[in-house]
Amino acid sequence: MSQSKQRLSSRRPTVVLTDHPWPDVGIEQAVLEAAGYELVAGPTATSTAAQVEAMIAAYDPVGIMTCWAQVSAAAIQRSTSLRIVARMGVGLDNIAVEAATARGAWVTNVPDYCIEEVSDHVLALLLNAWRGIASFDREVKAGRWNPASARLKRASERTVGIIGYGRIGSATARKLALGLRSRVLVTSPTLLASGQAGCEIASGVWACDLDEIQRAADAIVLHAPLTPATRHLLDARFLSACQRQPLIVNVSRGDLIDSAALVAALERGQVSGAALDVVEGEPSPSAALVNRLDVTVTPHIAFSSDASIAALCRSAADDVVRALRGEVPRNPCNSPSITPQ
Amino acid sequence: MSQSKQRLSSRRPTVVLTDHPWPDVGIEQAVLEAAGYELVAGPTATSTAAQVEAMIAAYDPVGIMTCWAQVSAAAIQRSTSLRIVARMGVGLDNIAVEAATARGAWVTNVPDYCIEEVSDHVLALLLNAWRGIASFDREVKAGRWNPASARLKRASERTVGIIGYGRIGSATARKLALGLRSRVLVTSPTLLASGQAGCEIASGVWACDLDEIQRAADAIVLHAPLTPATRHLLDARFLSACQRQPLIVNVSRGDLIDSAALVAALERGQVSGAALDVVEGEPSPSAALVNRLDVTVTPHIAFSSDASIAALCRSAADDVVRALRGEVPRNPCNSPSITPQ
Repeated sequence: MSQSKQRLSSRRPTVVLTDHPWPDVGIEQAVLEAAGYELVAGPTATSTAAQVEAMIAAYDPVGIMTCWAQVSAAAIQRSTSLRIVARMGVGLDNIAVEAATARGAWVTNVPDYCIEEVSDHVLALLLNAWRGIASFDREVKAGRWNPASARLKRASERTVGIIGYGRIGSATARKLALGLRSRVLVTSPTLLASGQAGCEIASGVWACDLDEIQRAADAIVLHAPLTPATRHLLDARFLSACQRQPLIVNVSRGDLIDSAALVAALERGQVSGAALDVVEGEPSPSAALVNRLDVTVTPHIAFSSDASIAALCRSAADDVVRALRGEVPRNPCNSPSITPQ
Repeated sequence: MSQSKQRLSSRRPTVVLTDHPWPDVGIEQAVLEAAGYELVAGPTATSTAAQVEAMIAAYDPVGIMTCWAQVSAAAIQRSTSLRIVARMGVGLDNIAVEAATARGAWVTNVPDYCIEEVSDHVLALLLNAWRGIASFDREVKAGRWNPASARLKRASERTVGIIGYGRIGSATARKLALGLRSRVLVTSPTLLASGQAGCEIASGVWACDLDEIQRAADAIVLHAPLTPATRHLLDARFLSACQRQPLIVNVSRGDLIDSAALVAALERGQVSGAALDVVEGEPSPSAALVNRLDVTVTPHIAFSSDASIAALCRSAADDVVRALRGEVPRNPCNSPSITPQ
């Protein structure tokens, strides 16, 4: 860094990026620097809440950008002139939204950057299980060529239940129905409240309640936000009520599933397998769960592609700049009382 | 088997099933027995040409049903009253068709039983590579949780080239274009001869020549029959002309690819990976190829599902019965001079 740039930086207001599970922060940096702000980037690994609090205390930022690290009420209260907490992703479960609102700071997210990626990831996980890709690849690499052991199912004769029907859930439903011709059942509080249960809401996609998904689904896909009401939505009771030994697919948040109950259900044969991009306790999930051969795990990458990360970084940084200029951000998730500066 | 059934069997004309990489032959048996024929089933493993010749000599069948085992001219000539050789599958490369025709025997296949399965298998192999499923699952099981290492691509920004545009190739093209919104290029002798190169022949599916696929495709999928003209279609010369380091996907016949040239192209980075359901030398393919981590292999199971195998067994056995009754089979692949019996 040149001396003049250093001098300039020292006078610029700071935006802290708590964690970035993509190595390059060039886009965020370019957008913020062009607008007169300095980016201080934390590690690629997820910082702890205490580490985030220490970063905020050290840099006193006007903006916080976060991927998965916890931005606690304590962190938010330590900043003296915070205007925005920008989630680099969809869910807000790692941000103390009320504390930000009380502090007069915007909370934003990026709801639309990875619709293609996450819905493709679900198809990838379902097809990996249905077509036996990873398991047969292991067999062949171990020197066994045994097509007679295949017990595969036709995707167009499978019923997939999707819990959550927002942007991503509806993309997954469309791809399964149009692409693979699977039968698709979807449920969400909104669908049920609007009385759509029993209706074909898109070609090959039927709205229903949770009971119907437990009764009829060969695979259950979680596309739901993590809230106090949805934590451990799939617990021992839910899993034991599933009637077709479904494959459980989670691309939303690990805490939606009680991991111990999932292992027990796999042991008892109540579910036939699991395919998880998110796991309770990540980045150090239970080995008893992730090491099972009937469980496929990817490390919270369903959102990821060159294209989605570029869109994410640009969109989040743009909203930080809008908020810091006193404008309303494009993707606000709260309604703080903003005092004009 | 009861004594009366044994006595009856000994007088029934015999149909030999040379190999069946599905354990249960109940459907074939039921169809043939109901029509007054006895089924003699060989092993699930692929018999050698010599083993097939020995079976034919031993049982002198009126019909031969075969999956992957070689039915040679010698085998066909050893039978004294052969009326049909039924391929339990699509391709005819393991049957001496001319010898059967000369012998006055029908050759049939089952062209439509696994369209869904094989096209789904292609999507499974592509998405496994594009979304890093098997490779990240290996990482997580080895105790590494590293989302920052993801270098994934958006499927809707990928171009897939498909060589062969029959029933299965067109199903794969449709699923990729409608389901994943990938750009799809297809080529076949029929498309080129009919002057369709450059045309959008289905929504999101463009006909082109092989050069264009080598130039533009991020993945190349083989949906072509094995003939003397297509053997080693993907050789060193073809692979070195590929410009976008494509992923090579083969679900048709192993001999379409020169395996040694593929390993060399992977080593040189001319292609980025391979996903193979069929491999030269199967069921004992080259370990140097299949043990690579940039190569995913399944053991010739793309055709397989409960539903497809049931349809296959029924369709093939029905055509055997038709031929043995002197009727024209539903899926004839030759035109023998049939002498009335």
